[in-house]
Amino acid sequence: MPRYKLEIEYDGTGFVGWQRQENGPSVQQSIEEAVEKFCGTVTNVPSAGRTDSGVHARAMVAHVDIDGDYQGAKVRDAINFHLKPRPIAILSAERVSEEFHARFSCVRRAYEYRITNRRMPLALDVNRTWRVWPSLDADAMDDAAQVLVGRHDFTTFRSVKCQSESAVKSLEEISVMRAGEDVFIRCAARSFLHNQVRSFAGTLAEVGKGKWTKRDLSDALNAADRARCGPVAPPEGLYFIRADYAAGNRS
Amino acid sequence: MPRYKLEIEYDGTGFVGWQRQENGPSVQQSIEEAVEKFCGTVTNVPSAGRTDSGVHARAMVAHVDIDGDYQGAKVRDAINFHLKPRPIAILSAERVSEEFHARFSCVRRAYEYRITNRRMPLALDVNRTWRVWPSLDADAMDDAAQVLVGRHDFTTFRSVKCQSESAVKSLEEISVMRAGEDVFIRCAARSFLHNQVRSFAGTLAEVGKGKWTKRDLSDALNAADRARCGPVAPPEGLYFIRADYAAGNRS
Repeated sequence: MPRYKLEIEYDGTGFVGWQRQENGPSVQQSIEEAVEKFCGTVTNVPSAGRTDSGVHARAMVAHVDIDGDYQGAKVRDAINFHLKPRPIAILSAERVSEEFHARFSCVRRAYEYRITNRRMPLALDVNRTWRVWPSLDADAMDDAAQVLVGRHDFTTFRSVKCQSESAVKSLEEISVMRAGEDVFIRCAARSFLHNQVRSFAGTLAEVGKGKWTKRDLSDALNAADRARCGPVAPPEGLYFIRADYAAGNRS
Repeated sequence: MPRYKLEIEYDGTGFVGWQRQENGPSVQQSIEEAVEKFCGTVTNVPSAGRTDSGVHARAMVAHVDIDGDYQGAKVRDAINFHLKPRPIAILSAERVSEEFHARFSCVRRAYEYRITNRRMPLALDVNRTWRVWPSLDADAMDDAAQVLVGRHDFTTFRSVKCQSESAVKSLEEISVMRAGEDVFIRCAARSFLHNQVRSFAGTLAEVGKGKWTKRDLSDALNAADRARCGPVAPPEGLYFIRADYAAGNRS
């Protein structure tokens, strides 16, 4: 069957997460059901990342096999039609080779964590950011964060429920940048552990408040001990923003 | 009683608008009730702008008289505490003179209208922007919009329900700017008519699509005829962003 690569935006607030589960609506199930309504194909839609409940995506990548030969734009519009009124939008659908796999072919994933650094409650951005106060030193956070770059045992920064065989991963890059009252943490790696970015964000916020030093962060990393992690930041500030594939997998 | 100037952010989605009405919750009533819970003062809270249902504010200005001598920060935090969990946030509260009036002392108001120019439905920004397709020429919109600047009879661009005595107003400035898939229309004037900015936005979108020329816009303005207005843009793209006061009114 023809395979299509999908780029997807979603508001994770009302979902149990990306992955199909018994206990509530998931993004994956919503898309699978929309595909079935469109063309009758009952299928599994794998993705580059399995986000938790409340976590958003600006450009999640998934793939779907569809029984029928359609233009990408037709696939995109038809799935969007059947997704209504759920807060999920297929941004693009592109025909790819059968070797393309949204999860296994992905060579690089990127997340953004948004903190709104203010005392006042949120009104316009409820469920879209983590409100933190007192004032954060974003430069100190950026400087400290660099100790996380490279190949490390990230046991400190993964959920005890993480199902990855190994906690050893390579973090390619991380940056912390202030824009007005927002502080953005962006990071990229071939793959991430469960709750890794939220563990980074919560711990880096402690650095921003001056409660942790760069040395404290480095020591916590080297301890490879989950008990040494700072607070885990809440899901609503986290966005899956990008998945990259080797050029040969694109079509 | 001491008077405080309030700067307020709100999500207008679930409200009948700023102004207290019989038919549902308003932003004004929510704030008045929070003030009463805080200090027992039953009061009227006037504002610089009376936004419609669904219209948002990044920095609405209002004032309140409070029976008691408090620091501004205390007033801000106390009202915010009693506003929970409503999507309204007092950004600042500042002691001002009794001559200050949020509505009558205001010398300049500014609004922003956000259009998201894409074919795909909205997921993350539902109720925060007006989705428009096909592609808009923002430069053509900006150029045409300049015919609106200055002193005109804006009958074409005001709701038939507008209660203003005169339709003659001076538009100080208007600009249209693209930022990625968003197109922002910003405008400022001493005062605006009911639905004026939404009438501008809907009509300018017709210019952006190439259906109206700059000349068509100019003719519609000069006709001073409500029937000549383009479609009125929906409330969810509109934000009250700023109110200015003469320096002498600040304290």
